[in-house]
Amino acid sequence: MRRPPDRLAHHGSLHKPRVVARSLRDGLTGRMTPEEFRAAAHELVDWITDRRIDIEARPVRPAVEPGDIAALLPTTPPPGGGSAASVLADLESIVAPGITEVQHPMHFGWFPSNASLSSILGDLASAGLSSLGISWESSPSLTEVEEVVVDWVRQLTGLSDRWSGVIQDTASSGCLVAMLAARERASDHAQAGGGLVRFGRPLHVYTTEEAHSSVRKAALLAGFAAEDIRLVDIDPWTRDMRPGDLAQLIKIDVKAGGVPAIVVASLGSTGVTAFDPLPEIVTAASPYGVWVHVDAAMAGAAMMLPERRELFAGVEDADSIAWNPHKWMGTILDTSLLYLRDPEHLIRVMSTNPSYLRSTADGTATQYRDWGIPLGRRFRALKLWYQLRIDGADAICGRLRRDLASAEWFAEEIIKHEGWEVVAPVRLQTVCIRHTPADLDPADPESLSRHNLDWVRSLNTSGHAFVSPSLLNDVWMARVSIGTEATERHHLVRLIELLKEHS
Amino acid sequence: MRRPPDRLAHHGSLHKPRVVARSLRDGLTGRMTPEEFRAAAHELVDWITDRRIDIEARPVRPAVEPGDIAALLPTTPPPGGGSAASVLADLESIVAPGITEVQHPMHFGWFPSNASLSSILGDLASAGLSSLGISWESSPSLTEVEEVVVDWVRQLTGLSDRWSGVIQDTASSGCLVAMLAARERASDHAQAGGGLVRFGRPLHVYTTEEAHSSVRKAALLAGFAAEDIRLVDIDPWTRDMRPGDLAQLIKIDVKAGGVPAIVVASLGSTGVTAFDPLPEIVTAASPYGVWVHVDAAMAGAAMMLPERRELFAGVEDADSIAWNPHKWMGTILDTSLLYLRDPEHLIRVMSTNPSYLRSTADGTATQYRDWGIPLGRRFRALKLWYQLRIDGADAICGRLRRDLASAEWFAEEIIKHEGWEVVAPVRLQTVCIRHTPADLDPADPESLSRHNLDWVRSLNTSGHAFVSPSLLNDVWMARVSIGTEATERHHLVRLIELLKEHS
Repeated sequence: MRRPPDRLAHHGSLHKPRVVARSLRDGLTGRMTPEEFRAAAHELVDWITDRRIDIEARPVRPAVEPGDIAALLPTTPPPGGGSAASVLADLESIVAPGITEVQHPMHFGWFPSNASLSSILGDLASAGLSSLGISWESSPSLTEVEEVVVDWVRQLTGLSDRWSGVIQDTASSGCLVAMLAARERASDHAQAGGGLVRFGRPLHVYTTEEAHSSVRKAALLAGFAAEDIRLVDIDPWTRDMRPGDLAQLIKIDVKAGGVPAIVVASLGSTGVTAFDPLPEIVTAASPYGVWVHVDAAMAGAAMMLPERRELFAGVEDADSIAWNPHKWMGTILDTSLLYLRDPEHLIRVMSTNPSYLRSTADGTATQYRDWGIPLGRRFRALKLWYQLRIDGADAICGRLRRDLASAEWFAEEIIKHEGWEVVAPVRLQTVCIRHTPADLDPADPESLSRHNLDWVRSLNTSGHAFVSPSLLNDVWMARVSIGTEATERHHLVRLIELLKEHS
Repeated sequence: MRRPPDRLAHHGSLHKPRVVARSLRDGLTGRMTPEEFRAAAHELVDWITDRRIDIEARPVRPAVEPGDIAALLPTTPPPGGGSAASVLADLESIVAPGITEVQHPMHFGWFPSNASLSSILGDLASAGLSSLGISWESSPSLTEVEEVVVDWVRQLTGLSDRWSGVIQDTASSGCLVAMLAARERASDHAQAGGGLVRFGRPLHVYTTEEAHSSVRKAALLAGFAAEDIRLVDIDPWTRDMRPGDLAQLIKIDVKAGGVPAIVVASLGSTGVTAFDPLPEIVTAASPYGVWVHVDAAMAGAAMMLPERRELFAGVEDADSIAWNPHKWMGTILDTSLLYLRDPEHLIRVMSTNPSYLRSTADGTATQYRDWGIPLGRRFRALKLWYQLRIDGADAICGRLRRDLASAEWFAEEIIKHEGWEVVAPVRLQTVCIRHTPADLDPADPESLSRHNLDWVRSLNTSGHAFVSPSLLNDVWMARVSIGTEATERHHLVRLIELLKEHS
């Protein structure tokens, strides 16, 4: 199925003369007609389906270098009037060979980025409805289906009905929204008056070095100062936050005249799946009115499993929690959830009400534009609606349990092999491993680091499997993130063989 | 086609017993199989196509009240295992009747929110590829096709090659990104050190009351103070910014110790299509290093027409420009473009580089995560790619010209009718109108306002057409935004009849 880059150059369909007679096109505007769309969409559906079926025949990571794909595309805009068939031909020969196949069962990189077929169907329904979310009135169903399905997921994850949710594009945006809400709560709505420049006191953010990069980014974008971000100590093995250190830092900052604004707790960090101890964090934070935001971007799906909810103990006392159905749960990007305990506060921070968006529904309907940054929104709730209606929570939970068992099995197998170790606790489905060859001095971290980065890159370049090189205490290791929908046990058996081959 | 709300209650397919035998489902997880997907997607494609063909048979605005749609959905999560056919049945009977049909030729509300069929095809291709945009390596094609098509659009809109672009979800986000870039430029990268709380000087934002609500929202979220936002005077008829007032305000603020950070110029405002005079704005701003952001969310599409580019004179000297192909141009939501003159500055403000995202491509490939807020991105470039390949710029420009001529014709027709006036200049495709009945005292603005709001609501409630009630100088009027793809001249003839009937 896959074509090497040099064959890509032989595409011949770009900018061909108009192969669809103008008479088939809309008379006035020349745009694609519904019947042309129907035929092309049927063809595309078959292509998509066949591609999913054949996925194992392709490499996980394409053998392309920066610029290779762009070089195959014209530098000037096309004249238009091309057939959908010619575009599909180029999708097949140019575009598709240049994507990293995160749906491939041998994809163990970054995090599971599952796109369940049921949710793709929901995405197609959303595109087909072509509705516009800028107010309740602009698409009542868009708002109300979102309210309903977000509440279904709330119930499925064991959150109480004190929580209200909204779909964001990503947990990065969810974290920024939480930072902004916290900034305004801590500064007594400074934005409405003299702002941060006249606030006069440092506003503090607390997190750990293990937190996702988006946390620091969100803090800085929200206007917090780099020097006011406190990295709380972590346990060297689990990399969980040490709540005693948090309590002490808050006290020191308050004594110095600062205002503690927000703690971001990672529940299932991206790096090593650290779980910051939320009950103790809340105990340290609540006397000072500090906003507690929970970043459970990857791991939040595990809240669907009652037997794993102890990992999320204390979440009920947080102020906000963000997690991504578009990761392990398998709702296609972009489907991130942000739950809030006090949405009214967020609305005060975010709301706008220009006259051209007012309607008789004001005051009675939810206006999701006031729950986040963008005004216009897609009908993303249909992705969750389709997935929950067709696959259902039971099937999703079954798959999550399969992945948890797979990770446990994989970790146990790995350490049976000479020179291989598991370098962080396996809390969920991510296994962090490192290889020390027999001829390498284990006291030489630089050689160890280089060796591990080298074998990971060798494996990834092969296209047979993909794992994420990652730094742990400044030494490279490999994160094996298990949880792609298609990954079964035999793929892990194969992965172990490949790890040995490439190390 | 449309069902009244009371009939919606008779849907019978929700949460039915599993109609697809388990044997058809994936053995281990129970999730939808590729062949089930294929069949369901074909069915959905036909439904979508038929719906587009039949669109005129439905009302523009559904006769639903807040809560009506939610009341038809179960309050608890479904058991799953439902057939795609049952979901489609509910999509048809519950969800679709609750959307406002912005693709309807009698939709004249807000702004054109066109979803060209060619771009829907691109959206389906994106969903089908199911790729993950978190770095160049996670999907090389996603990054490089975006670079190429964003540059195609740059060329089509006459921008010089000094501009680099990126797709954002909306112009609200694009404006926030510009605000953050401006904040950091004006504060000498305060976020990297002591932040705004230690900056000590007011940071000023300049815009007008005619600017979109997202401008003020973005300024406040970016940490600017409400009291540091300057609303520059506007011309009472065109509602364009008065650049002399801007120059004076900047001087006053500088003299008082403030730092002018950003001017947001509206080119084609949402309200009355005001065009702030960019050359003079740049002249006033540049001596002080003020960032000039151009909000051309709706009107940017007109840059594709060489004969209209004079409206955008001066844009080359701005720092950033945001406009939405997902409005008048017709690329389905969410496809907003942000062009920057100095992307390196933005990258310094936004960049993150955690170890698990590093690859050998670092330093040579574009990392779009550093060009905006979210880390994870969809393959949105395919929507533009499909539209430009299939429909093409010529067809799109033809349609834009049709709409401009329609607006001109409509404005001329309206004023031929006793009691009707056009209350703002028709710069592009939006016509602002007001009706004064013969028996109403024109010196009584309150009655005039009530009358205009009443007839607009009466028209909108009828479902036969939709226009936006909007305040102009505190008196309600109606904004007739022409530019839905399907709107032809005879629809405007019908609109005039309806306006008279309901006034």
